[in-house]
Amino acid sequence: MPKKSRFLQTPVEPFAVEAGLTTDQILSRMERISFQGRNLATAQRVWLKMLEDDVTIFLGMAGALSAGGLRMVVAHLISNRYVDCLVSTGANLYHDLHETRGQHHFLGSPSADDAALASERIDRVYDTYADEEEFIGNDIWIADFATSLEPRPYTTRELLYRLGGHLWDVTRREGILTAAYRANVPIFCPAIADSSIGMGLSQARQKRRGAGQIDIIGDIVESANLIIRRPRTASVVLGGGTPKNFINQASVQAEFYSPEVGGHRYALQIVTDVPHYGGASGSSLEEAQSWGKLSTDAARVSVQADATIALPFLATALATSAARILPNRKSPVFASMASAVMTVDGMTVPTDRFEDVNEPAV
Amino acid sequence: MPKKSRFLQTPVEPFAVEAGLTTDQILSRMERISFQGRNLATAQRVWLKMLEDDVTIFLGMAGALSAGGLRMVVAHLISNRYVDCLVSTGANLYHDLHETRGQHHFLGSPSADDAALASERIDRVYDTYADEEEFIGNDIWIADFATSLEPRPYTTRELLYRLGGHLWDVTRREGILTAAYRANVPIFCPAIADSSIGMGLSQARQKRRGAGQIDIIGDIVESANLIIRRPRTASVVLGGGTPKNFINQASVQAEFYSPEVGGHRYALQIVTDVPHYGGASGSSLEEAQSWGKLSTDAARVSVQADATIALPFLATALATSAARILPNRKSPVFASMASAVMTVDGMTVPTDRFEDVNEPAV
Amino acid sequence: MPKKSRFLQTPVEPFAVEAGLTTDQILSRMERISFQGRNLATAQRVWLKMLEDDVTIFLGMAGALSAGGLRMVVAHLISNRYVDCLVSTGANLYHDLHETRGQHHFLGSPSADDAALASERIDRVYDTYADEEEFIGNDIWIADFATSLEPRPYTTRELLYRLGGHLWDVTRREGILTAAYRANVPIFCPAIADSSIGMGLSQARQKRRGAGQIDIIGDIVESANLIIRRPRTASVVLGGGTPKNFINQASVQAEFYSPEVGGHRYALQIVTDVPHYGGASGSSLEEAQSWGKLSTDAARVSVQADATIALPFLATALATSAARILPNRKSPVFASMASAVMTVDGMTVPTDRFEDVNEPAV
Amino acid sequence: MPKKSRFLQTPVEPFAVEAGLTTDQILSRMERISFQGRNLATAQRVWLKMLEDDVTIFLGMAGALSAGGLRMVVAHLISNRYVDCLVSTGANLYHDLHETRGQHHFLGSPSADDAALASERIDRVYDTYADEEEFIGNDIWIADFATSLEPRPYTTRELLYRLGGHLWDVTRREGILTAAYRANVPIFCPAIADSSIGMGLSQARQKRRGAGQIDIIGDIVESANLIIRRPRTASVVLGGGTPKNFINQASVQAEFYSPEVGGHRYALQIVTDVPHYGGASGSSLEEAQSWGKLSTDAARVSVQADATIALPFLATALATSAARILPNRKSPVFASMASAVMTVDGMTVPTDRFEDVNEPAV
Repeated sequence: MPKKSRFLQTPVEPFAVEAGLTTDQILSRMERISFQGRNLATAQRVWLKMLEDDVTIFLGMAGALSAGGLRMVVAHLISNRYVDCLVSTGANLYHDLHETRGQHHFLGSPSADDAALASERIDRVYDTYADEEEFIGNDIWIADFATSLEPRPYTTRELLYRLGGHLWDVTRREGILTAAYRANVPIFCPAIADSSIGMGLSQARQKRRGAGQIDIIGDIVESANLIIRRPRTASVVLGGGTPKNFINQASVQAEFYSPEVGGHRYALQIVTDVPHYGGASGSSLEEAQSWGKLSTDAARVSVQADATIALPFLATALATSAARILPNRKSPVFASMASAVMTVDGMTVPTDRFEDVNEPAV
Repeated sequence: MPKKSRFLQTPVEPFAVEAGLTTDQILSRMERISFQGRNLATAQRVWLKMLEDDVTIFLGMAGALSAGGLRMVVAHLISNRYVDCLVSTGANLYHDLHETRGQHHFLGSPSADDAALASERIDRVYDTYADEEEFIGNDIWIADFATSLEPRPYTTRELLYRLGGHLWDVTRREGILTAAYRANVPIFCPAIADSSIGMGLSQARQKRRGAGQIDIIGDIVESANLIIRRPRTASVVLGGGTPKNFINQASVQAEFYSPEVGGHRYALQIVTDVPHYGGASGSSLEEAQSWGKLSTDAARVSVQADATIALPFLATALATSAARILPNRKSPVFASMASAVMTVDGMTVPTDRFEDVNEPAV
Repeated sequence: MPKKSRFLQTPVEPFAVEAGLTTDQILSRMERISFQGRNLATAQRVWLKMLEDDVTIFLGMAGALSAGGLRMVVAHLISNRYVDCLVSTGANLYHDLHETRGQHHFLGSPSADDAALASERIDRVYDTYADEEEFIGNDIWIADFATSLEPRPYTTRELLYRLGGHLWDVTRREGILTAAYRANVPIFCPAIADSSIGMGLSQARQKRRGAGQIDIIGDIVESANLIIRRPRTASVVLGGGTPKNFINQASVQAEFYSPEVGGHRYALQIVTDVPHYGGASGSSLEEAQSWGKLSTDAARVSVQADATIALPFLATALATSAARILPNRKSPVFASMASAVMTVDGMTVPTDRFEDVNEPAV
Repeated sequence: MPKKSRFLQTPVEPFAVEAGLTTDQILSRMERISFQGRNLATAQRVWLKMLEDDVTIFLGMAGALSAGGLRMVVAHLISNRYVDCLVSTGANLYHDLHETRGQHHFLGSPSADDAALASERIDRVYDTYADEEEFIGNDIWIADFATSLEPRPYTTRELLYRLGGHLWDVTRREGILTAAYRANVPIFCPAIADSSIGMGLSQARQKRRGAGQIDIIGDIVESANLIIRRPRTASVVLGGGTPKNFINQASVQAEFYSPEVGGHRYALQIVTDVPHYGGASGSSLEEAQSWGKLSTDAARVSVQADATIALPFLATALATSAARILPNRKSPVFASMASAVMTVDGMTVPTDRFEDVNEPAV
C-alpha cells in the first residue's frame, strides 16, 4: 500500500451519539470532526492550556450577553479564576447591574410590534425585553453612586471595582460586577462613555459639579503596565468590539516599553463577525499576529458561533475538565483595587506612566 | 406594585454552570436565555413534539455535513426513526459512501496551500481533506453499480435504496445510506445531477448504453403522494439548499391534489444563511407560511448556527429526552422500496401520477 | 530614504467623489481601495480578460435574482454574449417565465404578516410578493407545454431551449429564457426537480402518460463534452448553490476524459455565503483549485456582496468597458439546440457518452 | 379582471442595463428591484429627505473605512455638509491622520503569511498593509501634540478639533480630521481609549505629568445638549460599533431632559452585521424604535452591504442628486470649537450639565 500524503494524517472520526454524555465527553468526540464543531472542541483544549501555563487571562465581552442570559456564566468564570481580568462593553455591565439589583430581562419576540413596545416603554434587544422605567431607575442609582464619590478622575478599573463593591453591599447578590469585586478581578470598560453606565455618570454632573470624571487614558497605561509586570498573557474574546481591540492594544503598548512582552501567548475568540469586511471584530487571529498582538507561535482558535450557544457548553465542559488544574493555578493577585494605583503580585501598576524597562535605572 | 406589561411575563433566567451536566440538562437551562441559545433549546422541544404527534418527519441535509463528521449522527437519527424520510444533496451521500467503503476524510487546515494540495491530488473542503484517487475509485464503483442495474429510469428514491443495499451487502458497515436501507427510510436527492453520484452515473453510460437514467420528475410525484397518503408532516432542515425547498415543495404540490394537506405542521431549521438576500436557503419559516409550505399555526424554530456545533449537542440531548417517546411512535411504514412503486402503510405511492383526491371516483 | 518592504508597493488611493461619474469610472477609482470595493473593481477587470481571451464563459445563477429584478440584466449578458452558457436554479427560470408571460412580482415588506399574505394567497420572497393563482397558472402552462412534447427523455438543455422557443413564439417578450433561445445560448438546470418548473413537468404526467421525462444525467455528459470540445473556460457565479458546483463539476468531469482540460481559467463569484461552515456555496476559489475545478494559475475574484447591489453596477460598467471587446470576441457557436445532440462550433456534443480523447481512434 | 390584492400594488421593474449611466440614474432604476439593491436606492432617497428637512445629521463610522480608502468620501460628506457631526472609532481617525501626514496604506492580500509580515513589521487589516514604524511615528506625533496642550481634561470633541487644526497647520492636506476642522463640524470619539489615538495620548503622560486627560463623560453631556438645542436629527451609520450606539444614546439622553426630543427622525445604516445574535451593531432600526432612539414614524433604511461597495456609489449619486438641495440647507452652525464649551447656532452647548428644559426658570 502506498504511503499516504503528509496532508492525510488524521482521519475525521464521525461523531457518535450516545445518551447521557456530559459536555466534556461530547467536546472530546468533536475534536475529530470538522468546521466549527472542531473549533469549539479546540477552544476547550486551548483554554485548558492557558490555565496550566499560569498566564494572565484577559476576557473580552461584547454583544448583549448579559441581557441574553450569560451573566452568571461570566461571573462563574471570574469567581473560579478561569480568567483574571475582564474587559467589557458598558452595556454588559449595566445589564448585569440591572439584574443584580433584582430586576429582570424578559423573553420576547424578534418580530414584535416595536411601536407597541415603545408605547409601553419596553426596550427590545432582538428577542429580549426590558422595562425602560427600571432602566431609568438604574441610571439614577448609578448617578447617585457617582455623586457619592470624591470628585476626581477615576479609571474605569477603579470605578467599576467601587461600583461592584457598592452593589455587593446593597444587594449581596451574585453577578459579574459583584463577582469581580469579591474575587479582586479588575474590569476595564474602554467605551464606558458609550453605554448607560456612562449616561448615569453624566447625570451625576446634574447633581454635583465635578462628578463623573473618568480617566480613560489611565486605563490604557494601567492595562499595559499589568502586562509589563506579568508579560505572559492570553486573550479570550466573546464577540469582538472594543474589548477585543483593547486587550490586543494593551499587549502592543506594553511591548513598546518592555522587550519581554511579545504578544499574547494564547488567543481564543467566539465571534459571529467575519474577516472579509475589514473590521476588527471579525478579524482573524492570524491577522493579529502581523501586528504583534499575538506572538507568532501563539496557540489560537476562532469559533464562528453565537456565544449563547457556544459558551454554556464550553463553560460546562471546563467545569469538569479544568477541575484538577484550577486549584494549582498561579493566578495574578490583584490588590489595592479601590485606589488609583492597584497592585499585581505586590507590584504597583501605575496609571500615570508606563513602567519603561528600557529606561536606565536612576 | 403596578402590574407588569403583558410583554414582560417570562424573565430571562441566566444560565448556571455546573460540572457534569448532560446536554439534555444544559438545553433545559438554555430555554430561558436569549438569542440563538434559546432557539437551540426550543429546537429540542419542537422535535419532541413532532415525535409525539406521529407526523411524518422529513430531514433535509445540505452543506458538507458527511465529510465534516456528522454522518453517524444522521445515521443514528434514521436508524432510531427520529426522522422518516431523508432529502439530501448528492455530496453528503457520496461522502457517506466514501467512508462506508472504508475510506476517510482527514483533518486539515483552512489556510492550506491549495496549489500544493492540487499537486498531491488532495481535495479540500474548508479544513477537511480527501484523496482524489479514492474519489475517482468511488466514481467507478458507482458507475459499476449503475451499469449492473436493468437499464430503465429510476427515481432517486429507488436508486438510493438499491445503492444502500448494495453498499450494505459489500461492506456491512453503518452509515447514512446503509442505515436508510436497513430501516426502510426513503432518501430523495433532487439535485443528484449536481454531485459525484451523478458523475458516477454519467460514467456508467461509457460502459453500457442506456445506463444511468434518473426519473427526477418521478421523485416529485412520489414525494407529494407520500404526503397525500399521510398528510401530517414535519420539516427538519440542516443548512438549506435543495433539500429545504424540495421538502416544502412536496407539501405544496400535495395540497394541490388533496385538501387534507395544509403545509407542514412542524418546522425546525439549523441554518447559517440569512433572510435578507432573498435566497431560499436563508429564508425564514414565517415566509414559508405565506406560501402554505408550513401551516400558519405550525410550531417552528430557526437556529442560526453551524450544524457541526448544534447537531451533536441536540442529537445527544434527544437521545435522553426522546427515550420514552420513540418506542410508542407510530412512524410511517415503507415497503417495496426496491421497486418503482413503493408503499407507505400498505398504500401504493405512485410516481406516474398524483393521487388526486379531488377527482371523482370512477 | 530607505527602500520600502516588498509588501508595501501599491498605496491605497482613497476614493474621490465626483458628480456625474459613470459606473465604469467609479470602478476604476475603486481598484485602489480595499475590502469588497476593490474586489468588485477587480471583477470588472477579470470579466474583461475572459472576454478578450475567447474562453467559453459559464454563468451560474442561484438565489431569487429573477424575482428580485435582475432578469433583464441576465438577459442582457446572454444577448450580448458576455456569457456563453447559463446554469441556473429552476426558480430563477420559473420567475423569469412568470414575468415574460406578462405577470409581475411586487414590492413588499420583509416584516409582513405572513398569515395575512397566506389568506390572500400571496407568496413572499423576503420583500417581494407574487400572486399564487398566477403561479398555479404558470404550472399549468408548463404542464401543457410538456404534454405537447414527444414523450421521451430530454436534457434540461434541450427542454429549456424548447421552452424558451415556445415562450418567445407566444409572447415575443424579452427575458432570460427567450434571450437564451434567440442567442442560441444553452441553459442547464441541474436541480430542475427542485423547482416549480419541475412541479409543472410533474403535473404533465397527470395529462399524458410518459410526459415530463428529464435526462438529468445526460446534462452531466453534455456539459463535460462542451468543455472537452472547447477546453478553455471561465466560471462566473452569482450566489453559489447547484449552479456553482455544476459548472465546476463539468470541468472536473471533462478533465477525466481529456488532458487538455485543466480547470477553469477564470473564476468570478459574487456571493454572500462564507467559507467557514464548509458548504460549497460559500467555498473559496482557492479551495476550488485544490480540486482542479480551477487551474492553479486562474485569474479569480470573490466579491462578498448581494448581487442585487453588485450586478447592476458591474453590468452597467461592462456595457461601456467591454464595448470594444465584444464585437471581436470568438464565442462558441451552438446549433441544433432543439435536438438531443447539439453542436458547438460544428462539432457534436453527445449526451450518451463522453468524448474520450484518451481512447485510441478506431 | 378582478382587483389585485392590496399587497400587490407596485410591480418589480427589472433593472435595465445601459452604457454610460450615472450612478444617480442607476439608483433610480434600482428603486423598483428587490433585496439590498432596493435598500441602497432607498438610502439615497432617505438621505435627500434628511437634507431637505434641515435636521442635524449625525454620521457614525466604524470598521476600517479610512484604511480601506473611504476617508476622502467621508471628508467630502463633511466639507459639503451632507452631515453635521461625525462620531467615529479612534482607528478611523488615526488612519486618516496617517494618510494626511503623507503616509500610506498599501494593497495587500488577505491570505498573506502573517509571520513574514510580522518579521518585516507590517500590520495587516484584511487585504491592506501598513508600516508599523510609521504608526509608531504617528503615536509619537500625537503624544507630542497632546503634550503641547494645557494640561486639563478635554472632551474628544475639543481635542479632535484641535488635533484637526494642528494637522491642517502642519500639512495643509485634506482628510477627515482637517475637513471637519475647516468646516467646523464636531467629531466625537466615545471609544478613543480603544485606539492608537488613545495610545498616543497615553504616551503623552510619559512626557508631561497631567497630559492626556479626556473628559469622556463631557462628550455624553455635550452630544445630548446638541440635540436638546436642535431637536430634529438624523442618524447615518456606517458599520455599527460604538458610533451607532453613541448617536442613539445622545437622543435618548436628550429626551430625558427635553420633551421636544423624540428620537431621530431619519435613520440610515449600511451594515454587514445581522440582528439575530443580539448585538447592537447588527440591530434593526425597528428595534431602535422600541427604545425611542428613533421616532416611531422615522423614515429609515438598512442596507446590508460592505460600505466599500455601497458608499462610493451612494456618495457619487448624491453629488448629483443633492446638488440643488445642499445650497439651501440650513445646517447647524457650530462655533467656539477650540474651547471647552462650543456653540450651536449661537447657543452654548455645556459639557458640565444638561440643558434641562423641564426645570423651572430661576
